[in-house]
Amino acid sequence: MNFNGNIELLTDLYQLTMAYGYWKAGLDQKEAVFHLTFRKLPFQGGFAVAAGLEQVIDFIRSFRFRPEDFSYLGTLKGVDEQPLFTPDFFDYLKDFRFTCDIDAVPEGTVIFPHEPLIRVKGPLIQCQLLESPLLNLINFPTLVATKAARIAIAADGDPVLEFGLRRAQGVDGALTASRAAYIGGCDATSNVLAGQRFGIPVKGTHSHSWVMVFEEEIDSFQEFCKWLPGNTILLVDTYRTLDGVKKAIQVGLKLKAEGKKLVGIRLDSGDLAYLSIESRRMLDEAGLTETKILASNELDEVIISALKRQGARIDIWGVGTNLVTAKEQAALDGVYKLSAIRNPGESWEYKVKLSEQMIKMSNPGILQIRRFKMNGENIADAIFNEEEPSTKGYVLVDPLDPTRQKTMPPQVTYEDLLLPIFRKGEVVYQIPSLSSVRQRTKEQLNQFHAGIKRFIYPHEYIVGLEKGLYDCKIELIKNIRNQFTT
Amino acid sequence: MNFNGNIELLTDLYQLTMAYGYWKAGLDQKEAVFHLTFRKLPFQGGFAVAAGLEQVIDFIRSFRFRPEDFSYLGTLKGVDEQPLFTPDFFDYLKDFRFTCDIDAVPEGTVIFPHEPLIRVKGPLIQCQLLESPLLNLINFPTLVATKAARIAIAADGDPVLEFGLRRAQGVDGALTASRAAYIGGCDATSNVLAGQRFGIPVKGTHSHSWVMVFEEEIDSFQEFCKWLPGNTILLVDTYRTLDGVKKAIQVGLKLKAEGKKLVGIRLDSGDLAYLSIESRRMLDEAGLTETKILASNELDEVIISALKRQGARIDIWGVGTNLVTAKEQAALDGVYKLSAIRNPGESWEYKVKLSEQMIKMSNPGILQIRRFKMNGENIADAIFNEEEPSTKGYVLVDPLDPTRQKTMPPQVTYEDLLLPIFRKGEVVYQIPSLSSVRQRTKEQLNQFHAGIKRFIYPHEYIVGLEKGLYDCKIELIKNIRNQFTT
Repeated sequence: MNFNGNIELLTDLYQLTMAYGYWKAGLDQKEAVFHLTFRKLPFQGGFAVAAGLEQVIDFIRSFRFRPEDFSYLGTLKGVDEQPLFTPDFFDYLKDFRFTCDIDAVPEGTVIFPHEPLIRVKGPLIQCQLLESPLLNLINFPTLVATKAARIAIAADGDPVLEFGLRRAQGVDGALTASRAAYIGGCDATSNVLAGQRFGIPVKGTHSHSWVMVFEEEIDSFQEFCKWLPGNTILLVDTYRTLDGVKKAIQVGLKLKAEGKKLVGIRLDSGDLAYLSIESRRMLDEAGLTETKILASNELDEVIISALKRQGARIDIWGVGTNLVTAKEQAALDGVYKLSAIRNPGESWEYKVKLSEQMIKMSNPGILQIRRFKMNGENIADAIFNEEEPSTKGYVLVDPLDPTRQKTMPPQVTYEDLLLPIFRKGEVVYQIPSLSSVRQRTKEQLNQFHAGIKRFIYPHEYIVGLEKGLYDCKIELIKNIRNQFTT
Repeated sequence: MNFNGNIELLTDLYQLTMAYGYWKAGLDQKEAVFHLTFRKLPFQGGFAVAAGLEQVIDFIRSFRFRPEDFSYLGTLKGVDEQPLFTPDFFDYLKDFRFTCDIDAVPEGTVIFPHEPLIRVKGPLIQCQLLESPLLNLINFPTLVATKAARIAIAADGDPVLEFGLRRAQGVDGALTASRAAYIGGCDATSNVLAGQRFGIPVKGTHSHSWVMVFEEEIDSFQEFCKWLPGNTILLVDTYRTLDGVKKAIQVGLKLKAEGKKLVGIRLDSGDLAYLSIESRRMLDEAGLTETKILASNELDEVIISALKRQGARIDIWGVGTNLVTAKEQAALDGVYKLSAIRNPGESWEYKVKLSEQMIKMSNPGILQIRRFKMNGENIADAIFNEEEPSTKGYVLVDPLDPTRQKTMPPQVTYEDLLLPIFRKGEVVYQIPSLSSVRQRTKEQLNQFHAGIKRFIYPHEYIVGLEKGLYDCKIELIKNIRNQFTT
């Protein structure tokens, strides 16, 4: 991955004004801990798949302010017509580098609400400056990787091709989506730039305009197969689909006679169940049993599942808009919250963000996720404070209903999900290849009960707060509420 | 605007395989015309606002293939394990430049379904290679500019700030959205990089974490105003909103006594109608009548309208996710269709793309849009074929119901919306400043009846096919259908 131009100013203005304020007030070197979490699973689903970490690493590693940034920031004025920032701030930022400790769950990890995807520990000013870019770089890829995983589950082993470039949200919306879709389980993309940058396999067929350029549909098919013998997938619905199939069969038989092969036909409109069943019958009757049927047209996991139930004979799925924009939920609701602060050398002061809704309250502490497994299946996750780990077993409390508690039995095994990524600003993590990240997603999903992978009313996987953390959180909330009872 | 890195391979693979096929088949220099249109107005609304043209111009102007592109493309193989492209194709592409004629509606133009936003006329291979990038560069900005225009209409003159960076679809999803939101009518963005790149005003306040870093909320307010005297907008809902307002008032009165000013308070949760009315009362009673109230939290045009009806006393609107992702409709359904083709020097052969639905049929010809005006108000648009203009007046036909026809009265005035952008590959268009584009959106919207700007059941503006074009289209459709009646 390379970023496109300098993006160190990819941040909300208030991060810079707060950074300036912390520095002026002498608070910039306080040590803080922030966590990036999300609150609700997207698509009313039962799981999410983490993505975007590699871009976060690139962003932090290459971060520096440039003279042109100071020139620009120096032009910003407040309502008093005075510059927002005094020039000494730019001197201070000149040699700014990130020196924090950052832990994160690897890309391709299955993850749930309230679990930290990223934990940042370091000088307050650094934690604050990371908020906006981290949210931008994690929210969207995680959303699309999750959507792609759902689509791959619906396709049930059939190849899924991502065709979303034309309707994606910007150039980088498309690139980011192609990468995340591959992580989630897609097999290839149509986006050549994503292939070039990330090494994702690229695939494609031809468009209706190819057919329309020729006087006769069959000429267009013959010419396409002549010049692209390794890519003989013919789009058959420019005029009348089953007529198109007949012509594709003529061409396929000719290819077969020459010892070549018609790889596939593509359906892009109409009743895909009916048309694919008819097309399969016609192809099989002609002896073209190896020719695949590729379908596209506003597909998503629900439509793919429905088509399969209806007996559609589709071998390859082309998915575009609904995948790359995550249609029904265009954003993950990730947030980034302060959870602990101290003067260097002193002990931590834990923090929660109040809300009228318990679901929006952040968790205090220096958090880690422990995933418990029994008989090869994940059974529950505990969010706990690494500074104050439980000494005797794990009791998990449902923060939304503390009467629901669960004690982990002694025979469980576990692993902790947050891994060290940066220590004192240096990368200590071996970035995995994209194909191994994609493999991780598959393996991770296999370790969960099928119930969480349903699209309708999925099983709710248990994520509890370790009891000590729960008690600490409630205490903090009570303390704050008490200040306002007057 | 600068693109970020080389993006000449931002295309679907099939554009390159088709380009290769056209070239091999000796068809690459046929002259073709393609139009970029969309089929359905987004958000069940009554209009759309065109955006993205400047990026299209940049893309085309700076387009060239690089040696590393050929190295990459040379690695692509078909199912026959042979390279997809032979090396002579790369020789051919080495000096490839766009030489086509391109016409487009300026950014900030109000536009309707089936109207061409862009018309490309030139060698077939060039038209084809532009399909994917043009759709990517136009679809999303047009969607967001339209959303922003709706939000600005709801805000009814109040400033609207775009705060969407953290939930946007990728780095460039955010940048593109900030630019388009400004075109549509937003007043500023929180995204500093968008400010730096596009000159959009940047604005911001502070976050909850700023407040939580201090022992007491009031200390956090005082310190913020001390160090950022030109940016004194205080977020009051970290603990309890109306308590926060009281403390902001204390700070505001102190500022006032010093001859300074509390610019505003910000509400970011809870019942924004009730809280803003109460806050306004408290501020006014304290004499802080000039202090503004800024509200944010999942706002969109519908919620803003509802808050206004409920008497909310909000002066400034911060809008994020729902604007930059266009939430309820995450993509515009833009398409790019062949409408005419010829051998150089011969006469045009017009083309339509068939579909079972009339709404999906493309229009044939070399199209232009004529917008008719009467008494200062736009009354109807006609899509017509520039090669065969009407000689005696304009009869507009509704393509979905040809019994609905409308003859333009003689006293109408008109303007044609597509302007020359490229001639023989050279830019012949003066790119307007972003602020003048934003101004254009406002002026354009003012020329339409208020009915099209309603959010619920908007008035449907008349867009007809000029009768000659309609007749030509029907003839072409009949001819194609006749080939398949057997």
